[in-house]
Amino acid sequence: MSEPRSPDAFSPMRWEGPGLQLLEQTKLPAEEVWIDCDTPEQVADAIRRLAVRGAPAIGVAAAYGLVLGMRTVRDPGRLRARFEEVSELLGSTRPTAVNLRWALGRGREVFERSVDQGPEAVTAALLAWARELHAEDVRINRRIGEHGATLFAGGSRVLTHCNTGSLATAGYGTALGVIQSAWRDGKVERVWVDETRPLLQGARLTAWELKKLGIPFRLVTDNSAGILMARGLVDGIVVGADRIAANGDTANKIGTYTVAVLAHRHGVPFYVAAPLSTIDRATPNGAAIPIEERKSSEITEVFGTRIAPDETEALNFAFDVTPAELITGIITEVGVLRPPYERSIAGAFGEP
Amino acid sequence: MSEPRSPDAFSPMRWEGPGLQLLEQTKLPAEEVWIDCDTPEQVADAIRRLAVRGAPAIGVAAAYGLVLGMRTVRDPGRLRARFEEVSELLGSTRPTAVNLRWALGRGREVFERSVDQGPEAVTAALLAWARELHAEDVRINRRIGEHGATLFAGGSRVLTHCNTGSLATAGYGTALGVIQSAWRDGKVERVWVDETRPLLQGARLTAWELKKLGIPFRLVTDNSAGILMARGLVDGIVVGADRIAANGDTANKIGTYTVAVLAHRHGVPFYVAAPLSTIDRATPNGAAIPIEERKSSEITEVFGTRIAPDETEALNFAFDVTPAELITGIITEVGVLRPPYERSIAGAFGEP
Repeated sequence: MSEPRSPDAFSPMRWEGPGLQLLEQTKLPAEEVWIDCDTPEQVADAIRRLAVRGAPAIGVAAAYGLVLGMRTVRDPGRLRARFEEVSELLGSTRPTAVNLRWALGRGREVFERSVDQGPEAVTAALLAWARELHAEDVRINRRIGEHGATLFAGGSRVLTHCNTGSLATAGYGTALGVIQSAWRDGKVERVWVDETRPLLQGARLTAWELKKLGIPFRLVTDNSAGILMARGLVDGIVVGADRIAANGDTANKIGTYTVAVLAHRHGVPFYVAAPLSTIDRATPNGAAIPIEERKSSEITEVFGTRIAPDETEALNFAFDVTPAELITGIITEVGVLRPPYERSIAGAFGEP
Repeated sequence: MSEPRSPDAFSPMRWEGPGLQLLEQTKLPAEEVWIDCDTPEQVADAIRRLAVRGAPAIGVAAAYGLVLGMRTVRDPGRLRARFEEVSELLGSTRPTAVNLRWALGRGREVFERSVDQGPEAVTAALLAWARELHAEDVRINRRIGEHGATLFAGGSRVLTHCNTGSLATAGYGTALGVIQSAWRDGKVERVWVDETRPLLQGARLTAWELKKLGIPFRLVTDNSAGILMARGLVDGIVVGADRIAANGDTANKIGTYTVAVLAHRHGVPFYVAAPLSTIDRATPNGAAIPIEERKSSEITEVFGTRIAPDETEALNFAFDVTPAELITGIITEVGVLRPPYERSIAGAFGEP
């Protein structure tokens, strides 16, 4: 499966023949290389290295990782211990994005329903579920795009941070899906692409996707969001999310909070686009979201070239938290949630 | 002259024997190379390429550029035309920093006082003046440092943006001079160094200077200022300036405005450190400051490596404007100016 079904939604992963193939995103845009993952260790490594990244994408990759981990079990008595082991391995890769934990939780339900039927049944059930999760994510993203597109007027200049497109999901994207849908509807004049240091997901990945889609964009440094808004050049902002707390506080790529503060000052609408699986109702607010700290060299080296004096130490928070009060709306597959988010989030999950 | 007189203030330029030597800052921190400038064209090129950069430093470099331009004139009748030509050449290099125009204006006064005495007298007068400007800038910066150091309490964690140290001036620095003075007084625990995209003056130059000075620092991406302040890890901010308008609005390196907006939200004091020569009383406010736009490739290439897909166009404003309302104080050689700046700036220039 997972051959690109249409040019607007390719998938950065595919399950073919022997196992999982992932588009090696650390090499984009210079090279388009697919890597083979035959073991859950390889999937965990790819997630840690950011070969596959983006909250929804790592959820789906982890689902396939469970399949790879369970399909080598022959002894029914080993199934449960192995499931715990693989689940722990995949779950420990990245602490902030909650879709990973959410996918592993759904995988556990599939496991429990099939475990009594033996190893082959477990693998078959997990694979069917992982494929469905993969396809479902694309369907969800298209719905997010439809809901989000209604928020923009014609001629909008939309700013986004990091990468939230097909590459960050199973296909189509969240925030970038919204931008794509709005562009289809003739509402987007131009996209401002924050380059998104340190790993340049905006410059490398979002620019790559927008170029493929033929959507007009200009790249800017993260430092430029302020002057763009001060000059009235930004009509709206859409970003993704790695975890949304029950009160609407949102963890996303480092620098998102800064964009939100600027948007608030300038009266520019600031939207978060994410599937409901990114909302973690067990996390009451942003202060309870663990923020991953990554290694110094991601900052001090750019594509292997050192940019700072030897021995320079950098502090590298991978995410920050945007408080709910700065968020105009949260675009989900069930519609656009509005403040107060405690209530609208509960409603999205079917509570009165 | 200009051999480093003490380890706290080396100079990125020196007048030795045949002409001007500039530390080639585009190659730092990997290489410490000095380039020879024998003509004003070479000085203009060095300013444009940012081999020498920082508002005070380009003012002094332009002064030496005038000397280089005038010393080849033999015919007294050619003096005035040549002065206009060289002045125009140097003045057209960069539009935002006002110290350049200020220095050329002072040079014009020196020229007028000496022109009737012939070519040799003009060159001698300009050289004596340029040397004095060079030495005066260091004295001014030390005074800025003394005034600024009084603003910090012990254990301060101070954030700075771009490079404003010895490298950006004739020596000692403006904002980084303040940090150095405060650190000498035992008031600075750590410096947060914004890397300052696109040209990474923070990562390349400020880190290099702080390392030499032995002042503890951590490098961060520009995207990190928000989370640092949200976590209470920043006690104060000091930045330099390229032009300060009569009402206190301040143009400085792109991204400065963003830091100021964040500081305002978090109640963190935000100071600008600059000599009075950076204040342009002929510019009424920030809207009247021309903002230099530089080439796209400064963003799309990092040390020659392409970071974005081919044909990606970037928008590259080199500066932004921080409105006076976000500035806690402007640290000058005559003291710390406070709002309302129309009045305190007029007072600094000797008006009642």
